[in-house]
Amino acid sequence: MAHETIDAAALDQLFREARTQNKWQDTPVPDAKLHELYELLKLAPTSANASPGRFVFVRTPEGKAKLKEALSAGNMEKTMNAPVTVIVAYDLDFYDKLPVLFPHAPDAKNWFTSSPSFAEQTAFRNGSLQGAYLILAARAVGLDAGPMSGFNNAKVDELFFAGTRWKSNFLVNLGYGDPEGLFPRNPRLDFDEAARFE
Amino acid sequence: MAHETIDAAALDQLFREARTQNKWQDTPVPDAKLHELYELLKLAPTSANASPGRFVFVRTPEGKAKLKEALSAGNMEKTMNAPVTVIVAYDLDFYDKLPVLFPHAPDAKNWFTSSPSFAEQTAFRNGSLQGAYLILAARAVGLDAGPMSGFNNAKVDELFFAGTRWKSNFLVNLGYGDPEGLFPRNPRLDFDEAARFE
Repeated sequence: MAHETIDAAALDQLFREARTQNKWQDTPVPDAKLHELYELLKLAPTSANASPGRFVFVRTPEGKAKLKEALSAGNMEKTMNAPVTVIVAYDLDFYDKLPVLFPHAPDAKNWFTSSPSFAEQTAFRNGSLQGAYLILAARAVGLDAGPMSGFNNAKVDELFFAGTRWKSNFLVNLGYGDPEGLFPRNPRLDFDEAARFE
Repeated sequence: MAHETIDAAALDQLFREARTQNKWQDTPVPDAKLHELYELLKLAPTSANASPGRFVFVRTPEGKAKLKEALSAGNMEKTMNAPVTVIVAYDLDFYDKLPVLFPHAPDAKNWFTSSPSFAEQTAFRNGSLQGAYLILAARAVGLDAGPMSGFNNAKVDELFFAGTRWKSNFLVNLGYGDPEGLFPRNPRLDFDEAARFE
């Protein structure tokens, strides 16, 4: 492991120049690119390697039409125009995979089956981490991302996840952004407003 | 924005070769490096730019001793030996900053004050995203990370956040890992187990 900062172009692409996109170029995203994205995001850490995040890559007209029913007005046009919209979700039954994912602790599943609220909190927290990994992995493979919370979660669950224990978390448009749709970057909190040393 | 994959060395450092570290070299992490980390992570997106994540960088013997009281047994030794342990937290009063962070929607604060459960969910989700950004930003600046959920959240809140509305989320050890402490990498879910196209 090289203990040096990655090169400046990569820092720009991941953090410094990356922006939440609202307008999309008419350039498709091949399914192979989305596989490439998943192969990166799956490697980043989750608690007990539980990997509760689930991802539906919506890119057909039929899938988009279904999703449209659940979108808030302000998110509709950009989402209909995005080449891909990911439903970032989590599986409340994630612990069924622990015998494979965390084999050295054979009782790991019991940590969660014994407390549904702990299981739900773990799924939501770690599914959210994996959603963030998806955003940064998308940027790493040259895609732009547009994450959103403005939609009806219950409606998405009904339309996409009926009969399962998958729950929608947030949405991420993916594609190649058109900078014409960018808003000016909003301010961020200074270190002293959000952090401290002890 | 270059729509190309970042270079292979950066992909390795961020995702492919990065590992959750359990043993730490005796090499300090300067405060300036933690500022560098914060300046990157703060840029990554949150809902309504609300930036609810809060970060306590614990690196003094006094701070570590306080934290020790809340750690589960399996996380104690590695955390006491890590140069820095970050308490990744979120502020339930995050919406007080919205007039600065999201100035074009003057009523944004009301979205959250009108529903404490929506505010809490937003803080937890987006504070978790920011914790994931911290892990990947740490790797980007050449640090290793060791995230953990095995600790007593209520105890940390009592010891570090009394009298505030900050809530602990998870912990991340930071420093320069000693590969001798690594476990073999656990398997991950294949694309078809965790994702699908629609």
